[in-house]
Amino acid sequence: MEDLVSGLLAGKVRSLAKAITIVENDLPGKREILQRVYPRTGNAYLLGITGPPGAGKSTLTDKVIAHLRGRGKTVGVIAVDPSSPFSGGAILGDRIRMQQHALDDGVFIRSMATRSHLGGLAKNTVDVIHLFDAAGKDVIIIETVGVGQDEVDIVRIAQTTVVVMVPGLGDSVQISKAGVMEIADIFAVNKADRDGAEKLVNELRAMLEMVKSEIKPEIFRTVATDGVGIEELVAGIFAHGRRVEESGLVAKKRCLQAENELKAYIYDMIMERITSLGGYDEIVRQVAAKKLTPMTGVEKLFAGLGIAQEE
Amino acid sequence: MEDLVSGLLAGKVRSLAKAITIVENDLPGKREILQRVYPRTGNAYLLGITGPPGAGKSTLTDKVIAHLRGRGKTVGVIAVDPSSPFSGGAILGDRIRMQQHALDDGVFIRSMATRSHLGGLAKNTVDVIHLFDAAGKDVIIIETVGVGQDEVDIVRIAQTTVVVMVPGLGDSVQISKAGVMEIADIFAVNKADRDGAEKLVNELRAMLEMVKSEIKPEIFRTVATDGVGIEELVAGIFAHGRRVEESGLVAKKRCLQAENELKAYIYDMIMERITSLGGYDEIVRQVAAKKLTPMTGVEKLFAGLGIAQEE
Repeated sequence: MEDLVSGLLAGKVRSLAKAITIVENDLPGKREILQRVYPRTGNAYLLGITGPPGAGKSTLTDKVIAHLRGRGKTVGVIAVDPSSPFSGGAILGDRIRMQQHALDDGVFIRSMATRSHLGGLAKNTVDVIHLFDAAGKDVIIIETVGVGQDEVDIVRIAQTTVVVMVPGLGDSVQISKAGVMEIADIFAVNKADRDGAEKLVNELRAMLEMVKSEIKPEIFRTVATDGVGIEELVAGIFAHGRRVEESGLVAKKRCLQAENELKAYIYDMIMERITSLGGYDEIVRQVAAKKLTPMTGVEKLFAGLGIAQEE
Repeated sequence: MEDLVSGLLAGKVRSLAKAITIVENDLPGKREILQRVYPRTGNAYLLGITGPPGAGKSTLTDKVIAHLRGRGKTVGVIAVDPSSPFSGGAILGDRIRMQQHALDDGVFIRSMATRSHLGGLAKNTVDVIHLFDAAGKDVIIIETVGVGQDEVDIVRIAQTTVVVMVPGLGDSVQISKAGVMEIADIFAVNKADRDGAEKLVNELRAMLEMVKSEIKPEIFRTVATDGVGIEELVAGIFAHGRRVEESGLVAKKRCLQAENELKAYIYDMIMERITSLGGYDEIVRQVAAKKLTPMTGVEKLFAGLGIAQEE
């Protein structure tokens, strides 16, 4: 355990991989690792990349990684997008393309399973982010798909979230409805050499007119397959990051994230105490049989732990 | 409060509506209502209806309601599908169509906002289901869209879940990937008069060949706009319900559902105790500043409540 943690903090790939496996699978030692690692976190740049399937997100992510590597930055990637080649839903071409990074020690790619109950994904994802962070990755990319709860969770912690769009994948009114405007810090209009790209950019602009937030999302045009616009996009990402830092929003996000994490541990740890008490299964049975209401059941469980009844 | 609860248990529409408003918005009296109502629940038939947007789910739901009314059954509808006309994302035609039920005391339709953090939707939805149930609704329909966490939550509690599909909305291989096979008790191939309907039915059949579950999903063809196939579908739903009841699966589901509900209350009630303690905000700040790990923070909060440290 000592070796594992010190290896991880020194940025050793094998230690990192092993720690991730332990954390992801709830193996013994998980808590100890996270306990030791936590004080060394908070230095990485967290970048969310999301968008609909087919927007060319993975190709774009791939090119962003290559560009960051060219600037000497180490990168951790967490793919929670089930359709992403990073997380295994790959077509062969994508897999082959990824091989270039597989041979690079400065890039570590990990796919994560989809969410479990009670915000499970968010918690596990955050734990793995901590490991990357403590291992010294300069940039951590979290790739998700769509605009569901997962994306909202990611946005809560990422410094910058890029929403990738392409012309011809449904109209932007539909997209605005789905909550993209609330999520995006930056729009990447990918496949910008296609028909309809200018129309999409104009529609996005029109919608951004109505956005009231302090820092307005910027729009970038990219053709990820050819590497076009990647440099400008990455520069835009870091420029956004600086503005967010200066505005004090990062500090606010950190506080919110700390609270979310604390709440997840409160739940996990109270459940551990309760289930180790004995009598839990009997209370579940009585609630199922409608002999006990859930609230009264909880009061009984709390009394068993020594928590006083609320007056 | 006395009048409200007794009115609700007597099935009065106004009392039900008021109780739902209180429960949904966490107004004072919520806990008391749920406490009193809970022992009177467990009698309604819970029916989940889900499927992609554009599958004609709302029209089908509408026809199922009308058919159930014709059989003398009272119906409660909870629409958690943001694209559903029941929950307000309506085109005018849908709204007008719904008016017929608006004038019928035996049908109560309620839309629910999308999920909040930590399984919020599931909990609020379940609370409203309890109210419908205690108010004597014979059938409670929960309408959702897609196959995300919401749908999994609904399937966990519904006796029968119908997945509505249409020809031409993406191929069924894609659908099988997305987890529909795990969710569906019954497939309704809607717009069955269209080209490609037979192909879709055959593809579903081929996939069902590989399903190992005890009770194989059945496939029904419907043309909801014309009311075609609705009687057969409803008969199929109740036939499925009887088989599930006989197999003991319903008892199992009730137990799981009771446990989920208990867990949600454990979380809510422990958070209430912790935040009323004082010192919570300071611990959040220390965790955000990396001066305290989340685990150590939780231990401190637990100690404040009188919960002994785990050895």
